[in-house]
Amino acid sequence: MARPRKNEHIKEQLLEVGLDELLTNGYHGTGIKDVLDRLGVPKGSFYHYFRSKEVFAAEIIKFFADDLNHRLAASVSNKGELGLPALKRVFRLLVTEHKDGSGGCILGALASEIAETSEVCRQALQKEVENWNRMMTIIIQQGQTIGDIRNDLDADVLARMAWNCWEGSVLRMKIEGRPEPTEEVVEVMFDAMLKAQ
Amino acid sequence: MARPRKNEHIKEQLLEVGLDELLTNGYHGTGIKDVLDRLGVPKGSFYHYFRSKEVFAAEIIKFFADDLNHRLAASVSNKGELGLPALKRVFRLLVTEHKDGSGGCILGALASEIAETSEVCRQALQKEVENWNRMMTIIIQQGQTIGDIRNDLDADVLARMAWNCWEGSVLRMKIEGRPEPTEEVVEVMFDAMLKAQ
Repeated sequence: MARPRKNEHIKEQLLEVGLDELLTNGYHGTGIKDVLDRLGVPKGSFYHYFRSKEVFAAEIIKFFADDLNHRLAASVSNKGELGLPALKRVFRLLVTEHKDGSGGCILGALASEIAETSEVCRQALQKEVENWNRMMTIIIQQGQTIGDIRNDLDADVLARMAWNCWEGSVLRMKIEGRPEPTEEVVEVMFDAMLKAQ
Repeated sequence: MARPRKNEHIKEQLLEVGLDELLTNGYHGTGIKDVLDRLGVPKGSFYHYFRSKEVFAAEIIKFFADDLNHRLAASVSNKGELGLPALKRVFRLLVTEHKDGSGGCILGALASEIAETSEVCRQALQKEVENWNRMMTIIIQQGQTIGDIRNDLDADVLARMAWNCWEGSVLRMKIEGRPEPTEEVVEVMFDAMLKAQ
């Protein structure tokens, strides 16, 4: 892969550090100045790439989702799994990303904090959650065809339930300060609720 | 009931307005000054009741949960329902509170934004989520005894899954800007996933 031009590199660094700040301090708790200070980048550079803090957050949502989806798709494809094992692989990978009980999902965090007050961010969130749901629906449909995932409910409904349950478990992980809630979801939700009986 | 003393009334008003501000603007986006300005209360009064913004948020968590639990318990008890119908009544009542697709759960919102950075709030959240889980576990145990809720999983595990799925659906509601995700959870989670087959 060609080395990114310097400009692209700065933009990516801003997105990476912004993601980290948003996950730790939330939208309102994140100052553009803090992001710039961490990178030693002047204010003008920021506004060259991002029209506003709101647009910056919307691009971070896409940056986060693109990276995650790419890694998850690669992992599933490498193993050649389909249906339930593929679904569990995806969520087990998510569990490993929170193994110290910290972090979180920027989609859930920004949904909670600013989806109602920022239409720009709400639209970015909706797009990425729909993308995610499409990916999971395909895996669940495979499982329904193979016969290892229940087929009394539509695949897209099950995909939404899995997302809901996962996001709730991330909140519980933060409340308990330990990763067990996310681990429990993978075992209970997938083995006892989505598996074909 | 005796009319509350003026002091108690001011404290309750601060909690009510604080809850509204936190739900709309998040923890970092809420200024104590905004709360005081809305009520015309001087700064000194605030610090008479609350040592800090963090303690204020922790008391709002308890205030929100006490009020909600009281209303839900009264509704279930009035109808004399047990098991699955009682569980669905609880969550259908929650759905009606979000029928315009806005609002949210302050437990989920603060879990996401500050559970990792405020130990005072994390402990308040943990206490209320545990209370909630105990209430739901009792209802689910009744359902397992009656036979209308599945009994292949422990009641407390099912209670946690119901909470997870609900909280995830509230995030999705905010992302979609409509209440359907919360309505879907009540039908799918309870009718197809928790019901005894």
